[in-house]
This record gives sequence, structure tokens and C-alpha cells, in this order.
Amino acid sequence: MTKGITMQLNTLTEALHSELADLYDAEQQLVSKLPQVIKAVDNSSLRSAIEVHLEETRNQVARLEQVFEMIGRRPESDKCEAMQGLLEEAEEVIAASGDSQVKDAVLIGAMQRVEHYEIAGYGTARAFAEQLDLDDVADLLQESLDEESAADRKLTTLAEGGLFSSGVNTQASHAGDSRV
Amino acid sequence: MTKGITMQLNTLTEALHSELADLYDAEQQLVSKLPQVIKAVDNSSLRSAIEVHLEETRNQVARLEQVFEMIGRRPESDKCEAMQGLLEEAEEVIAASGDSQVKDAVLIGAMQRVEHYEIAGYGTARAFAEQLDLDDVADLLQESLDEESAADRKLTTLAEGGLFSSGVNTQASHAGDSRV
Repeated sequence: MTKGITMQLNTLTEALHSELADLYDAEQQLVSKLPQVIKAVDNSSLRSAIEVHLEETRNQVARLEQVFEMIGRRPESDKCEAMQGLLEEAEEVIAASGDSQVKDAVLIGAMQRVEHYEIAGYGTARAFAEQLDLDDVADLLQESLDEESAADRKLTTLAEGGLFSSGVNTQASHAGDSRV
Repeated sequence: MTKGITMQLNTLTEALHSELADLYDAEQQLVSKLPQVIKAVDNSSLRSAIEVHLEETRNQVARLEQVFEMIGRRPESDKCEAMQGLLEEAEEVIAASGDSQVKDAVLIGAMQRVEHYEIAGYGTARAFAEQLDLDDVADLLQESLDEESAADRKLTTLAEGGLFSSGVNTQASHAGDSRV
């Protein structure tokens, strides 16, 4: 949300606009940052998964523009402080020194926090659209929500080792000394 | 994470420490902020639910301290930028002008984003603990994860109207004009 301007929440319609503007900014921040994450990732399966999700994220931006059109508004963007914080944390992992597999494992966690932010955001926006009987809008928001949930599950599968020879986490636990 | 200091991620043990320090700060930020959210909420069922979750959050701080003790470390706290952003967004909703039921509906969305952050965070930390064969630590982290998931479901129930006469969202859709 824009600092210094008091939010207006008089109607559920305004609440929906506020959620859409937050998501629109969040997705755009993500489109800007994901190429840097992709570059930093060591594991090729993880890199492919994030590349696929970058394409999905671009589609989600377009889908939000479609939603704005359906409700007769120009696309609005309100600075999403939460996504900014989430991506700052991802940047710190990218900048961390250490083992590349351990960094991949922690990056998966950072990306799952991002997915969960969006799952909650789309869930709220879809609920408002449903209450307002905007069924087509709710359906579009559900499509993005389903993609975010699938991306989160894919990251869990990668972390658990389904697509790695023995799993990022397992390999990482053998890298260097353990001080536990 | 502390700005200006490069994170060390040489081992999965260091990764677990990093996740725990992030969660420890996030939970403490939440303990500080929830009383302000409780004061701002209009609906009594929603207020009660957040009061219960404040108590759970205090227990989760204590549980993290127990985890630090189990792994032989003093509790560490790294500034969680994401939680800071999430709580800034909640503050903007609290400061918004408008209908109290609409504000409650949007606050539920802000709180669900917080729960989802913690669900992802505890999920990652628990996975690392499991990989490191720290079963007792993993079990404790799972307890907090289960509480966060239950808190998220409770908020969904409240938003959908299970505990309201006709639902926060429904009522809010009738408050004021609709510009859709």
C-alpha cells in the first residue's frame, strides 16, 4: 500500500480492489526478481522449476490485468511491503557464502514463503469476489491460486529429493561439519 | 537476517539455525503487534480468535527457546524483514478509514498471510531437522506448524461466516455503495 495515503475500506468492492492492487504489485516484484534467483540456483531441476514458475508468474500478471478489465478498472498497483521483505530475504540467501546445495535448500524455503504469501492473497481476493457474485473473477483468481499451490508442492517434492539423486537436503547435511 | 553481515550456509545445521533465528524474530514481532490488531477488530468472535492465537504465539516463542536449548545454542534472533512487511500491511488496514466489518474482512486476509508465512517457515525448519535426524526438534516444530494451520483454518471459517450471523464478508458487501 502507498505510504502516507489512508486506505479506503468502505465496501467489499474497495476491499477487493485493495487485494488486487497488492497482488498486482507482488507479482510484478516477483517477475523482476526471479531471474536473479534462477541464476543463483545450483541444482538444474530446481532451476527448471523456477523457470517454469517465472512463466506462470508472467501469466498471473496478465490474468490480473484481465480481472481489472472485467471489473472496469485500469490496473492498479499498491506497493506490497510483504513481498519486498520476502524478496529481501531471498536476496540474502543468494548473497550468502557457503555450500551451493545448502543454499539451494534454503532458497526453496524462501520461495515457499513467497508461494504461501500468494496463496493467502489469492484466497482472500477470491473470497471477496465470490461474496460480490463476481463468479468469472473468482474463477480466474482460483486459477492463479491453483498454480501457486502446485508450485509450492513442486518445491516440497524437490526438497524431499524426488527429483534429486539423493535430495538437496540430504546431500547438504553431509557438506562440511555439523555443529549440532 | 541482519543487514551487512553475510549469511553462512555451509551446512544444513547452519541452515536450520538460520530458519530458527528467522522464526524466533517473526514470532516476537507478532507477539508485539497482535494486541494492536485485537484492539482494532470489531467482531467479537474474530477478536476472541486472535486473542487465543496471541497466547499460542507466546507458547511458540517458548517452544523455539526449548528447541534452541535442545540443540545446545542460546536463542538467536535475526530480523525477519518479511514479517515486518506483513505487519506493516496489517497496520495500514488498522489505520484505514471505512466500514468496520470491511476492515475486519481485510484484517482476516492480512492475518492469513502471516499464518501462511509461518506455515512455510516451520515447514522448512522441520524438514531440515528431520534430515539432520533431530526427531524431537522436528516434533516440536510440527506442533507449532499444526497450530498455525489450525489458526489459518479458523480465520477462513470466520471469513466464510461460520461464527458470524451472516458472515463478515456478506455483511460488508452491503455496506455503502458498490462501484463494480
